[in-house]
Amino acid sequence: MAVRHYTLDFSLPAPADLPATMQGLQSIFQEQEMTETIHDTEGHGYLVTFIGKNGRFGVLRAHSHGLVTFDLQCCEGDDVAQVDNLLNELEKKMKSLLHGNIKRIKRLPALRRGDEVDRYWPTADGRLVEYDIDKVVYEEDSVYQNIKILHSQQFGNILILNGDVNLAESDLAYTQAIMGSGKENYAGKEVLILGGGDGGILCEAVKLKPKMITMVEIDQLVIDGCRKHMRKTCGNVLDSLTGDCYEVLVEDCVPVLKRFAEEGRTFDYVINDLTAVPISTAPEEDSTWEFLTLILDLSIKVLRPTGKYFTQGNCVNLTEALSQYEEQLGTLSCRVDFSKEVVCVPSYMELWVFYTIWKK
Amino acid sequence: MAVRHYTLDFSLPAPADLPATMQGLQSIFQEQEMTETIHDTEGHGYLVTFIGKNGRFGVLRAHSHGLVTFDLQCCEGDDVAQVDNLLNELEKKMKSLLHGNIKRIKRLPALRRGDEVDRYWPTADGRLVEYDIDKVVYEEDSVYQNIKILHSQQFGNILILNGDVNLAESDLAYTQAIMGSGKENYAGKEVLILGGGDGGILCEAVKLKPKMITMVEIDQLVIDGCRKHMRKTCGNVLDSLTGDCYEVLVEDCVPVLKRFAEEGRTFDYVINDLTAVPISTAPEEDSTWEFLTLILDLSIKVLRPTGKYFTQGNCVNLTEALSQYEEQLGTLSCRVDFSKEVVCVPSYMELWVFYTIWKK
Repeated sequence: MAVRHYTLDFSLPAPADLPATMQGLQSIFQEQEMTETIHDTEGHGYLVTFIGKNGRFGVLRAHSHGLVTFDLQCCEGDDVAQVDNLLNELEKKMKSLLHGNIKRIKRLPALRRGDEVDRYWPTADGRLVEYDIDKVVYEEDSVYQNIKILHSQQFGNILILNGDVNLAESDLAYTQAIMGSGKENYAGKEVLILGGGDGGILCEAVKLKPKMITMVEIDQLVIDGCRKHMRKTCGNVLDSLTGDCYEVLVEDCVPVLKRFAEEGRTFDYVINDLTAVPISTAPEEDSTWEFLTLILDLSIKVLRPTGKYFTQGNCVNLTEALSQYEEQLGTLSCRVDFSKEVVCVPSYMELWVFYTIWKK
Repeated sequence: MAVRHYTLDFSLPAPADLPATMQGLQSIFQEQEMTETIHDTEGHGYLVTFIGKNGRFGVLRAHSHGLVTFDLQCCEGDDVAQVDNLLNELEKKMKSLLHGNIKRIKRLPALRRGDEVDRYWPTADGRLVEYDIDKVVYEEDSVYQNIKILHSQQFGNILILNGDVNLAESDLAYTQAIMGSGKENYAGKEVLILGGGDGGILCEAVKLKPKMITMVEIDQLVIDGCRKHMRKTCGNVLDSLTGDCYEVLVEDCVPVLKRFAEEGRTFDYVINDLTAVPISTAPEEDSTWEFLTLILDLSIKVLRPTGKYFTQGNCVNLTEALSQYEEQLGTLSCRVDFSKEVVCVPSYMELWVFYTIWKK
């Protein structure tokens, strides 16, 4: 059982005679058998609340600066036609009372509050977006994170880690971008993938006939969920942790990178597909930025002189975070250069920055 | 002056002792000097409203089935840190009162109500999405429609006609898709564009050295706005209504199509870029579907036997509307075949269907 929260707002060009206007609306609520309570706002405009049948609750508020807002909360399963009708009546009456003198009327799609399946996953830059999610197909709490795979009508299944949209089955654009946007020749090359538990990069890389791919993913439960529910992304590569030209190590990538660096093992491509907020089991890496730099430093160590390091940045709007990251690139023990690309990843609902980094 | 509307919802696994829980929250509101009113809900759970300083207004509601919702409306310019603090305190207290026994806590980005610049432009399939819009750069009411060009930080300027997002400067993907996704050879061809007032198709088509492009756009004010504010889309092609290989007719396309059909004038490509809800000045075309069929029928008449007709469909989720359109294709006076493609148009926040239609 959930609640639908309707909003209907009127922006008036000038402060109207609000008490009179509010009075004029009364009949609409009386017809709906809603009981009104007028509140004392201590000079902050006009405020009435309404209690109606079936748990309906309304708030009508008129701000002295000329904004009139109306909220209507209804229980799921309430008569939608009746609710629509009430909102239509209110809109009609307001237009008539104000002689059409309204700057803007805004009626948003109802907020769905307390639904069994949560459809709201804000963007990295903090905007409210509603997804067309209709089903939870996988949910686990691993030692490292909360893992959800949700079904979207248009994007297919979406992997969400700790509330962040990671990748949907529609998002080949992400995988292509973090592999160098088709401009690289992977044939015969040695590739290291950090993270990548959804199997997208592994699946695409295997097709390009590299010599060997090593993937280091910390979370077995991510692999398990994606193997089952993200097959448009991972194909069959996660069915086994080893294949003709790849192996998956289910480990924290930090000690693995350190081991590789010590052993002098190097790669043509290092692809950092760790989640935006990185996960580490090591207690000494307590800040995200320190962790990022550590990973970068170690990755550059295991990168061949002609090699390339690929990683996602963040939403293109987070210019400060991106600048900070670029500054970090200047502080590495090895001098590097970089280029970046802005890519539209379908399920992200925001443009995303990807980096290519190489040794100077 | 606008209002920020914060929501904070708690989904409880089982109906808790709600009155006791609500009582336990009282101190938080008292500290904020909010005056409470307890409402009689006629058996529909627990409902308290709060009036606070600076016009703050809160609603705490506990539904008997275990959903607790909190709303807080604040005037723009209110102390955000204080508001955040109140929400944090509420969340902390709820966790403690219910001993962490909460299924989901959901706090959405605040709704911005009555803002000078409207950021909410729902998708075609009716979902709520917030854009990163910070400025109105153009707004006109023409004889045909309301025209807005809004600036988005990430998408550039966005053309919005009658409240529908039409095209942003980031949306080359739309233009490429409606031109056949790069699989066509336009060199030396004759092209007819219906609508297309943003100039995107014209700009891209001109680069492909066609023999002649005729564009028929009804609304001079769309052209004017886009020429000035959508230059990443239209380049300089709208600076003049005629060019080396194109002419723009500022007319209703229906009589133009009829004229062309009578004259026996034909085209290699007809690109229908009319808005989703079509505009016609002719009173006899009163239904959208009739209008669509009329345009289609006339377009197929002026299409050469080897020609192709391109058009946008709609959001991939609107399966019924798409099926209905495809059925219409079977009722044309000339028999046609079609293919479709699903494309990610960055500013749309939903996947979009494009059609290619040709004579059987």
